[in-house]
Amino acid sequence: MRDVAIIGVGMTKFGELWEQGIRDMFAEAAIKAMDDAGVKKIDSFYVGAMSSGLYTYQEHLSSLMADYMGQIGVPGLHVESACASGGSAVRSAFIEVASGISDIVLAGGVEKMWDVEDGTIVLATAADQEYEAYNGVTFPGLYAMIARVYMEKYGLTREELAQVPIKNHKHSVNNPNAQYPFELSLNDVLKSSMVADPLRLMDCSPITDGAAAVILCPLDRAKEFTDKPVRIRAIGAATGPIALHDHKDLTRLDVVKLAGDRAYKMAGLSPSDISFVEVHDCFSIAEIIVAEELGFFEYGTAGKAIAEGQGTYGGKIVINPSGGLKAKGHPVGATGVAQVIEAYYQLSGKAGARQVPNAKFGMTQNMGGSGGSCIVHILEAL
Amino acid sequence: MRDVAIIGVGMTKFGELWEQGIRDMFAEAAIKAMDDAGVKKIDSFYVGAMSSGLYTYQEHLSSLMADYMGQIGVPGLHVESACASGGSAVRSAFIEVASGISDIVLAGGVEKMWDVEDGTIVLATAADQEYEAYNGVTFPGLYAMIARVYMEKYGLTREELAQVPIKNHKHSVNNPNAQYPFELSLNDVLKSSMVADPLRLMDCSPITDGAAAVILCPLDRAKEFTDKPVRIRAIGAATGPIALHDHKDLTRLDVVKLAGDRAYKMAGLSPSDISFVEVHDCFSIAEIIVAEELGFFEYGTAGKAIAEGQGTYGGKIVINPSGGLKAKGHPVGATGVAQVIEAYYQLSGKAGARQVPNAKFGMTQNMGGSGGSCIVHILEAL
Repeated sequence: MRDVAIIGVGMTKFGELWEQGIRDMFAEAAIKAMDDAGVKKIDSFYVGAMSSGLYTYQEHLSSLMADYMGQIGVPGLHVESACASGGSAVRSAFIEVASGISDIVLAGGVEKMWDVEDGTIVLATAADQEYEAYNGVTFPGLYAMIARVYMEKYGLTREELAQVPIKNHKHSVNNPNAQYPFELSLNDVLKSSMVADPLRLMDCSPITDGAAAVILCPLDRAKEFTDKPVRIRAIGAATGPIALHDHKDLTRLDVVKLAGDRAYKMAGLSPSDISFVEVHDCFSIAEIIVAEELGFFEYGTAGKAIAEGQGTYGGKIVINPSGGLKAKGHPVGATGVAQVIEAYYQLSGKAGARQVPNAKFGMTQNMGGSGGSCIVHILEAL
Repeated sequence: MRDVAIIGVGMTKFGELWEQGIRDMFAEAAIKAMDDAGVKKIDSFYVGAMSSGLYTYQEHLSSLMADYMGQIGVPGLHVESACASGGSAVRSAFIEVASGISDIVLAGGVEKMWDVEDGTIVLATAADQEYEAYNGVTFPGLYAMIARVYMEKYGLTREELAQVPIKNHKHSVNNPNAQYPFELSLNDVLKSSMVADPLRLMDCSPITDGAAAVILCPLDRAKEFTDKPVRIRAIGAATGPIALHDHKDLTRLDVVKLAGDRAYKMAGLSPSDISFVEVHDCFSIAEIIVAEELGFFEYGTAGKAIAEGQGTYGGKIVINPSGGLKAKGHPVGATGVAQVIEAYYQLSGKAGARQVPNAKFGMTQNMGGSGGSCIVHILEAL
């Protein structure tokens, strides 16, 4: 198995991109990534997208994207694992390069979410359609149940929970690609409209259009393309039960622990080696539980720790330097790729005003549904 | 890169499976394949499905299927390349085993098509939505244009074209999993209702529910599981333009030639080494052009050759011994996997009354859209 490095990245701005269709956004990100790596031709590619069928009535993204990024002929594949589709694209590209079948592989992700009236219904296809969605529960409701049980069990206060989006919005101010790069006050969060008690609008990641892409190649060829490659040191993937009612403990996301442990094992590293992590804060409560499952905090303590500044610069670990899903935006299929791009920027010293100092290892954690699937990557500065 | 073998297969009957949802069908095929291989636990899996979102409002098939086949925790991924989704699942599993990351990998495919009123609209999401489907052309119309140009250019008659489904239905009589295992007369084809001139109903593959799965492992471990493993000798994948108007020649499917040539090159084989081929006869004209692109017949001659018996037992090459998409059925995400299962049966001597004698090498060809993507596998008897 060959070692694998990232040699170029590209993304669109995240936001309401009314002037761009799904093919335009993906092509923009892909061509930017190819330009960044200085490659004109790729050997293969993957497109992460959660539901291009329901969002845009367009499947067959392999053919469409090969066509519109000027790479007709090249093998391509659309991969889907709900909101972990982007991370899955990176994992698939990693495996293909590691296998020796291909050298230059693009992993991209895209979602065009603003063109449908009720994106929440589309997102609910990541839940168990027969047992959850048809019965009226969508993701805000599912995560609200998780939040309620966690707050009750561990005494997390509403004010402490609010510190997650406050931190992430503060980070996003320095991210030029972020959808909502502004700071939030405690009052902004606590007075935002109720979505599913106790989660308010400012606890929920937004509806976003956007695309992101990275170029991978064998580590031993990386210096042909860039002075600053970043190694993908390890991948960890796992599935969990699709329905929330099959979780043994609502305050846990076993799938994250499983994927994280697999990545740590493959890398031969432990949580204390990691300087920053991009986590899947689809809802504020998710960031807290994920930070615990990845071993950065004891169970029941991450909420308070983040509220005390342990999840930002100068604290124990910088969580979501990009602004996270909440502030950077969450075009579901692109999110996992954008997390890897943030890790690439941080580990190649290109993160500008949001640079985490002296980072040797960074992690990304991308999740589907209410713990149905998870992809974790550990990246390494060279 | 490690060599890869198939050690077990399983599938549902293809047809109108009103009593089974998408999860039930996939679990049935997957568990049959695991039982066939004698494995209780897999390391990873892939699910090919074209549009579970539009057909069943269910995405996140990684989590759903891990759950319902009793493999929660195992990494899984839904892959899509329109009607080549199943072949793509096998290709992804092949790459993962070849890479050394995983040993026992399941590649499955599924589609639940009968639960929506107009499946043709869903299938049209494999075409260019903005330039083709929104303007009113769906796949019967696209392939009718191809057929019309081919018939005009090469003098293929309507009666000769009819021999493709006649042959495939004849083969299907011996396939217990086929949706329509009965023979057709010339009159049955020529008097069937017109769909898109010149294509009639009996030129068109049907709407089908079904699932199929295979288990792959490293070749050097295959004998632990079965006395009759079949090697996957090579894979070839390619993309082509998504819209038919971007084809340089309507009588050609360049994507098939490209994928086929890559597979021949990887295998170090040529068309004359292949004893049988499962091709993607979504419409009768497709089988003819594909047989030419794969090098079995000169351009412009396959239609007449098949009409003269060169595509069946005793002829030059047995095309679609299973009955093909037309007679076996075409649950789009499962089709590419079912093709590989047919090749496995043939090369392990388990094809019963439809056994191709003395076959050393077999090929499968799975296509998305009107030549937008293609996956070719070459399999080898051991």
